Amino acid sequence: MAEAPRPTGLIANKGIELLTAGTPNGWKASILLEELKEAYGKEYTFQAINIMLNIQKEPWFTKLGPNGRIPVIVDHDKGGFAVMEGAAILAYLTRHYDPEHKFSFTDPLDISRAEQWIAWQTGGLGPMQGQANHFNRFTKEKIPYGIQRYTGETERLVGVLDIQLKDQDYLVGNKYSIADIASYGWINIIQFSGVDLDQFPNVKAWWQRISERPAVKKGVEIPSKGAGFDNAAYLQRLKDDPEYAAKEKEQADLIEAAKKQYGYKFASP
Amino acid sequence: MAEAPRPTGLIANKGIELLTAGTPNGWKASILLEELKEAYGKEYTFQAINIMLNIQKEPWFTKLGPNGRIPVIVDHDKGGFAVMEGAAILAYLTRHYDPEHKFSFTDPLDISRAEQWIAWQTGGLGPMQGQANHFNRFTKEKIPYGIQRYTGETERLVGVLDIQLKDQDYLVGNKYSIADIASYGWINIIQFSGVDLDQFPNVKAWWQRISERPAVKKGVEIPSKGAGFDNAAYLQRLKDDPEYAAKEKEQADLIEAAKKQYGYKFASP
Repeated sequence: MAEAPRPTGLIANKGIELLTAGTPNGWKASILLEELKEAYGKEYTFQAINIMLNIQKEPWFTKLGPNGRIPVIVDHDKGGFAVMEGAAILAYLTRHYDPEHKFSFTDPLDISRAEQWIAWQTGGLGPMQGQANHFNRFTKEKIPYGIQRYTGETERLVGVLDIQLKDQDYLVGNKYSIADIASYGWINIIQFSGVDLDQFPNVKAWWQRISERPAVKKGVEIPSKGAGFDNAAYLQRLKDDPEYAAKEKEQADLIEAAKKQYGYKFASP
Repeated sequence: MAEAPRPTGLIANKGIELLTAGTPNGWKASILLEELKEAYGKEYTFQAINIMLNIQKEPWFTKLGPNGRIPVIVDHDKGGFAVMEGAAILAYLTRHYDPEHKFSFTDPLDISRAEQWIAWQTGGLGPMQGQANHFNRFTKEKIPYGIQRYTGETERLVGVLDIQLKDQDYLVGNKYSIADIASYGWINIIQFSGVDLDQFPNVKAWWQRISERPAVKKGVEIPSKGAGFDNAAYLQRLKDDPEYAAKEKEQADLIEAAKKQYGYKFASP
């Protein structure tokens, strides 16, 4: 595959332009944009931002997203107005481009319910699962305290979702919405994060339900086909690739050992 | 001081009832409620939730706030509708009880700007500074990697605020709003978190500006007078109490040593 050119600025002049990477936070924006495309024919442009190259820290990018993080959208039809932060992007896009409220709500209490679950994902599931990935996989030295702290907190949070989904198919008003989209991307890589989805049957059924949506399938392949760490690809690879499975078994044992070392016991909420 | 009775359920039957503790997340709700009280005469009731006793994990509480965390508000005038998550509480209260938009916005782009900074605080400053406090102060063993990681990330985030406040007094539209209230509580204890506010002059001036508001002064004393770890009280105690100052010097040295060990250099964004 030829390497994509290094982005140096915006490339579109109308519609929504998405600056993103293939991460759970990026998928919030790309899934909703794919849903809006399917529901309303709303087209959008995207650019892949290679976060390993720190393109999101370059001045042209931070002028749009001052936090230096993906995703960011730019609305060329609103004078180039830029929106950072997944939660704010979900709100912006539905406010302006979901006139029939197919993915959002009109009742003020439902609006609040969606805001609550989106804030919960933004402040809880996202950052804590992100730290779990960091300590479980990306630190040079292995730090058992961090491993069990964040894997455990992630499990607690998935447990909260599981209770919420006990008697309903979707998080708010039993209707698929931006509340679900916010958390879906993180749950979509929860096995990779060291949490067993089988432990949370309601979340697993919800994840499968959403995974079947055509727009979701497209959204998680923006900006490029997955790195293979979503639940389905990850579990498949464990079956197909004994060497990978052995390495991942070591990873799982590391988490188990860290939990044991600190006397971790699952509790939720 | 006589010990407060242990909360076992709701106590009000009209208006807003706030379940909270004296933390940066709790202050989001109590500051806005004090502002609404001052601006509109809107009264509210509160109960102190002792989070060390895990009252927020009891069934009567998690029925209202399924994540088992403070703050939660209950609107007795809306059939007992409950709202969890600081960001969602700020949105709910201004949507229903800020008819003149004294702390919120009507222009859709300003609404989005406020949502962006609130999401930024919810997903960034709050959780990362929370982890800094945990590793710097509350772990049994001292873990230099965690100390420098989260203190450094908190500094990066405060740096982002500092740039945003370079040419304006408040985060959005140069008007004091819920966008400021969201981050204020965390900045109000930033010295305690091991970040020197003098390094960020725009944030410092913004913090002082907001600290002078009567409703803010009242809000940070809900549910009880501060534990003394806000910036002003903390710096005063360093001056007044040599023993405390010596202990805090050790704390600061620990952070410095951890940063040095991992070659940390400040960078923002």
